[in-house]
Amino acid sequence: RLALPVFASDALSSVAYAPDEILITLSLAGMAGFMFSWPIGLMVGIVVAVVVMSYRQTVYAYPNGGGDYEVAKENLGRHAGLTVASALLVDYVLTVAVSVSSGVINAKAMFPFLEGHEAWTAVGVIVLLTIVNLRGVRDSGGAFAIPTYVFMISMLLMIFIGLFRIFVLGHELLSETANLEVVRPDGSGDLVGWALIAILARAFSSGCAALTGVEAISNGVPAFKPPKSRNASTVLGALGLIAITMLLGIIALANLTKVHLIDELTGTHYINEAGETIHTAATTVVGQLAAVVFSDWFQPGFYIMVAATMLILFLAANTAFNGFPALASILARDSYLPVQLHTRGDRLAFSNGILMLSVAAIVLVLAFNASVTALIQLYVVGVFISFTLGQIGMVRHWTGTLRTERDPAVRRRQQRSRVINIVGATMTGVVLIVVLISKFTHGAYLALVAMGLMYVLMLGISNHYRAVAEEVKLTPESDRALPSRVRAVILAQNVNLPAIKAIAFARATRPTTLTAVCVAIDDDQVETILDEWEAEDFGIPLKVIASPYREVTGPFLKFVSQLRTENPRDVVSVFIPEYVVGHWWEQVLHNQTALMIRTRLHFMQGVMVTSVPYQLESSDRRRDRARTLTENQVRR
Amino acid sequence: RLALPVFASDALSSVAYAPDEILITLSLAGMAGFMFSWPIGLMVGIVVAVVVMSYRQTVYAYPNGGGDYEVAKENLGRHAGLTVASALLVDYVLTVAVSVSSGVINAKAMFPFLEGHEAWTAVGVIVLLTIVNLRGVRDSGGAFAIPTYVFMISMLLMIFIGLFRIFVLGHELLSETANLEVVRPDGSGDLVGWALIAILARAFSSGCAALTGVEAISNGVPAFKPPKSRNASTVLGALGLIAITMLLGIIALANLTKVHLIDELTGTHYINEAGETIHTAATTVVGQLAAVVFSDWFQPGFYIMVAATMLILFLAANTAFNGFPALASILARDSYLPVQLHTRGDRLAFSNGILMLSVAAIVLVLAFNASVTALIQLYVVGVFISFTLGQIGMVRHWTGTLRTERDPAVRRRQQRSRVINIVGATMTGVVLIVVLISKFTHGAYLALVAMGLMYVLMLGISNHYRAVAEEVKLTPESDRALPSRVRAVILAQNVNLPAIKAIAFARATRPTTLTAVCVAIDDDQVETILDEWEAEDFGIPLKVIASPYREVTGPFLKFVSQLRTENPRDVVSVFIPEYVVGHWWEQVLHNQTALMIRTRLHFMQGVMVTSVPYQLESSDRRRDRARTLTENQVRR
Ligand SMILES: [K+]
Ligand SMILES: [K+]
Ligand SMILES: [K+]
Ligand SMILES: [K+]
Ligand SMILES: [K+]
Ligand SMILES: [K+]
Repeated sequence: RLALPVFASDALSSVAYAPDEILITLSLAGMAGFMFSWPIGLMVGIVVAVVVMSYRQTVYAYPNGGGDYEVAKENLGRHAGLTVASALLVDYVLTVAVSVSSGVINAKAMFPFLEGHEAWTAVGVIVLLTIVNLRGVRDSGGAFAIPTYVFMISMLLMIFIGLFRIFVLGHELLSETANLEVVRPDGSGDLVGWALIAILARAFSSGCAALTGVEAISNGVPAFKPPKSRNASTVLGALGLIAITMLLGIIALANLTKVHLIDELTGTHYINEAGETIHTAATTVVGQLAAVVFSDWFQPGFYIMVAATMLILFLAANTAFNGFPALASILARDSYLPVQLHTRGDRLAFSNGILMLSVAAIVLVLAFNASVTALIQLYVVGVFISFTLGQIGMVRHWTGTLRTERDPAVRRRQQRSRVINIVGATMTGVVLIVVLISKFTHGAYLALVAMGLMYVLMLGISNHYRAVAEEVKLTPESDRALPSRVRAVILAQNVNLPAIKAIAFARATRPTTLTAVCVAIDDDQVETILDEWEAEDFGIPLKVIASPYREVTGPFLKFVSQLRTENPRDVVSVFIPEYVVGHWWEQVLHNQTALMIRTRLHFMQGVMVTSVPYQLESSDRRRDRARTLTENQVRR
Repeated sequence: RLALPVFASDALSSVAYAPDEILITLSLAGMAGFMFSWPIGLMVGIVVAVVVMSYRQTVYAYPNGGGDYEVAKENLGRHAGLTVASALLVDYVLTVAVSVSSGVINAKAMFPFLEGHEAWTAVGVIVLLTIVNLRGVRDSGGAFAIPTYVFMISMLLMIFIGLFRIFVLGHELLSETANLEVVRPDGSGDLVGWALIAILARAFSSGCAALTGVEAISNGVPAFKPPKSRNASTVLGALGLIAITMLLGIIALANLTKVHLIDELTGTHYINEAGETIHTAATTVVGQLAAVVFSDWFQPGFYIMVAATMLILFLAANTAFNGFPALASILARDSYLPVQLHTRGDRLAFSNGILMLSVAAIVLVLAFNASVTALIQLYVVGVFISFTLGQIGMVRHWTGTLRTERDPAVRRRQQRSRVINIVGATMTGVVLIVVLISKFTHGAYLALVAMGLMYVLMLGISNHYRAVAEEVKLTPESDRALPSRVRAVILAQNVNLPAIKAIAFARATRPTTLTAVCVAIDDDQVETILDEWEAEDFGIPLKVIASPYREVTGPFLKFVSQLRTENPRDVVSVFIPEYVVGHWWEQVLHNQTALMIRTRLHFMQGVMVTSVPYQLESSDRRRDRARTLTENQVRR
């Protein structure tokens, strides 16, 4: 029951900006451009229908989720999988940037004082989402469901009421931009010929933003209740139907109420009835429709619609904060990203993923001044790369199963699925080409460069892990010899509680020999420590090494190295007392020498390094906090 | 023989900018101001003489160096010492910023294309010095001696030749600015009364920059050949004499050749013979004098003088790169800075000190656009705080020795020293007050704020170390109990070479019990590892913990914690295999989980953590590099 809203926010929220982008792009063709919004909306709707049908096949074939990445990797190989992964990672960043920017534009309808501060408001929202996600979101269903349902219901109601008022009650509903004329940048007349076709192609490409978020549902199949595939498929179908209804409904209403938008960035502008030129773009399509449908009889309806739109857009951004680490985890499992990203409990790695997503989205928002129209040029490409490769993978999948399947009923079903996926692959492939051509120079190339970088990075990481795995592989010839004896060395720079704890622990291991070593960097240190050592009577020899150059690491390493040379068949065990502190800045004040020695000892063959921690009182604080954090993480 | 030039560059280089700053400040009083350059130069010369005499007493009393910090700490207590230390640390930053900026201005006389790019050229020089010092300077005497000697000789020659030409040959030498009239910002006439006195006080304060660098010599006493104190004292005397000669010689020549400077920053400007207003400042005093003395008969003389001036200024900046870590090391020994700064071999800490100095100097240079006149307002304060407290400390010192000394000859000598130090303390104290009052609002407050921050920081660090030392102090009541048994646990996430090395080392320690633990985060991992484990037949039980939430740290810690609870009197020894890699970025790809587990285990009582390093082939590279670096460091 709750599965729908969680995944739906990303997919459904797109109808809040896709119609706007269609109209804005069409405005580049002049007033005549707007008449094409209807056929373009229809085409986008058809693509939505085909993609949703195609994904229903994927959901049945891959009930354990994984989405296009798994499908492409399994059926088309490593490089296709990596391509999809790169595209999706970049797309998550754009989902955050576009959704938040669009949410802020919608917010402006309620809070006009945001005008001129869009970019920083968007940054603020992203920071807020980051903090919430870093702390860990408990409720990932309940509270999130409400805005999604409110959005769906109020949107469908608005469309129904609008159409009812126009066609049944015969009201003449005119949007606030109905009487504004739109003029092209250079003031010349409407476009025709190839130039018009180019604009129509771009408008269609931007309208395809309506499809972003659909891919997220197939990733989420495991989260559905059993029968998972069936439920996921049903949700997908329902979602597709709702999305198409909303999209076409909005475009129909926008046509009927004569919504006219302009592209501020390229210089199209309005001329009002008084003949004055206006360069400022009006509010969003949803905002204009909500105003015209509700404002004259039920003002709260306007606010509910706009607020719900804003909230579902922020929710959509939030899904990326869940999806990004999830995809990163799968990629880490396959050794394309640092392995620790796969272990969820690793708070640091998880946090780093969220921070990377957040920083990238903030950079985008600031670079493009939170302009949805500018950001949308980078979006969509990634999703359609994912769609196309996913569908081609599915075609391969069915071809493979058909090779072995003998049951005629099952074969018939698989053949039907294959046909659907062939149609899906063809259509998404064609759309991808249209998107690439019409948007490449407008910004899509940036997204492609980012994807290329991710691809190269992940391939490099994967190759590294392969090489290391090969190097550490156990073979029958591998050396399994047991060291004969243990020579223990304690680094004892002071005679204090941490040192005697290290001594006690070292003695408990009953090594063959046990020596304490002090590297004295000041002259007076030598006598002090010898006196204190004798007073304690540990029964362990203390070797004091004078180091006139005030160097601890070098002389100590030399001592260990010598011990190794003298006893080549034994293993040396070095015990280092370490302070456990409560604040990060205390860490800077302690253990730095220990850390350096440990790092350097690691390069020596036949040496193991034992840290004997001594817990300072201040460490209690941090231990408690660490425990709380882990528990939160596990609970998720 | 080589001791002089190394320490001398800081002290002598100041005569390259001190006369300029006197003339620039005097220009604020109008044309009449310049006539005061002579008495002000004389007063500065007297202060130099008194300070040098005072320091000769310090050098005898403290043959082991340490300088004003040690003197103030020992005789006036912790807080006085810290005050001097804060002042000197800030002063090192200013020495770099001022010297490099002044060097760049002198460079402009040879390379006019630097005009307008002073700040970035200065940053480039600082970066160069940083790199050289990070890599470690081998030659700290030979090559450094040459520019210092060339500077001294050519400067003294220039003064001699200039005076000879004027007074003996009767040449009329006029500088390039001789015929320019200087007008105050508002165009009004010459200052009189209190306003004039205020300007004179500021000119004197800026001229006291000639004293910066003198304090560095007393820090360097240990570097002299025996008899150290005697040699250091001789060098100091010689240096004082040379500095005073240069300073007064330059001022005399500047007067005779009518050098007129303006203060671009406050808007004083030139009016030339044609009555035109010129707002651009002329080159430095040294540059103008070199031109007028050499250009008409021996052009190379001009270039040698200017180049030597530039080089000695960069050398002076370089001494700060040696002095800063040296002072930091002493402060670390006294627990005012992180202890690892005291161990010289710690490349990282040493590098961090150099980088901090460099970054702070770059920030200053950029903030003040490499203007010596602006930076000099922050300078000098620190040096005079150090002078004054050092001298007061010396007075206390002699008073103390006189209390016990009985030998009349020695007493007489000590009384004489005390008188000199009383004069020194009084004079430097008065100068400090003049400097504080005349410069406070012009920028000195920034230096004081920086010193205050350093003071608070170092006091906090010291208090922290004291508290910790108290906490870990061994008392007769301290627990010295030996754990009875060792329970060993191996973290074995894979069956590979690093794991069997950890197993072999763990077995060599012959613990009471030995268990291998694998936290399985994927279902298929469980069976794989169990099969591989059985195939190897280690004779050690493997406990596989399934972790459905893909968390490694938590379940592993829980296991260790349970083992602790079941065996409260034993110590748990955890063995973790670790990869030793060659590049820092490989570190990101490995050991992250190990690192997290180790950190968390440190918070548990009665647990020690043993790293068993496995050296990957790529680690050879880094080990070699680490070795080379350490050897360089030791050699210094
Ligand atoms: K959508
Ligand atoms: K979306
Ligand atoms: K998306
Ligand atoms: K000086
Ligand atoms: K100096
Ligand atoms: K200095």
